[in-house]
Amino acid sequence: MNEQSNAFISSSSQPVEDLGPGLKRQMLGFNHDLMMTKVWFDKGAVGDIHHHRHTQSTYIESGVFEVYIDGEIRVLSAGDAYYIAPDKEHGVICKEAGVLIDVFNPHREDFLTSNHSENNNEN
Amino acid sequence: MNEQSNAFISSSSQPVEDLGPGLKRQMLGFNHDLMMTKVWFDKGAVGDIHHHRHTQSTYIESGVFEVYIDGEIRVLSAGDAYYIAPDKEHGVICKEAGVLIDVFNPHREDFLTSNHSENNNEN
Repeated sequence: MNEQSNAFISSSSQPVEDLGPGLKRQMLGFNHDLMMTKVWFDKGAVGDIHHHRHTQSTYIESGVFEVYIDGEIRVLSAGDAYYIAPDKEHGVICKEAGVLIDVFNPHREDFLTSNHSENNNEN
Repeated sequence: MNEQSNAFISSSSQPVEDLGPGLKRQMLGFNHDLMMTKVWFDKGAVGDIHHHRHTQSTYIESGVFEVYIDGEIRVLSAGDAYYIAPDKEHGVICKEAGVLIDVFNPHREDFLTSNHSENNNEN
């Protein structure tokens, strides 16, 4: 497992991982303390409601998403963002296909292993 | 100074700060450990070479940028990304107008104060 990413990350040469129904993820810059990922959602794809110890901040590059955080639901679209405090429940439903930029502190160690047998549709 | 952002951040209601020549910034989700910002660059705008203790990861939403990191220069464009380890020198020159999503660990406390009299064009 790499301790950190390369300094320069070309979209065309960085692998894109198929996470299952309607979801793909590309790892961007990271070290132990910070991890940035790009996630493509097809319309109807779901990021199941879940929680984790990591702080998360997400930017909606494109698409429309119904976002659940800690008991509240909002419909957000391109240019909007959301923030998830540690351990708060959250999930998304993609209403129009799009792309999320998800960042975490600390890194998601589960994203760096080769075995993604579970928790793949948590975004 | 807020300890953390709201959970839901609407682009239309979130202030956009003018940082000086060709640069504007909007604060997105943050707490002490993680901070996400959106920075608009006009063509020719410069993020001066600088360094800081914070880990930084950046996603290029649009535009073309000449990116300097720790002695190396690459030209990156929409969809590419870069990662800056703590204390590494870095800077950008915008070759075609665009938008960067910059994230930091820990937060940039200097971005949360009302006095932005210096260090504004560091991205």
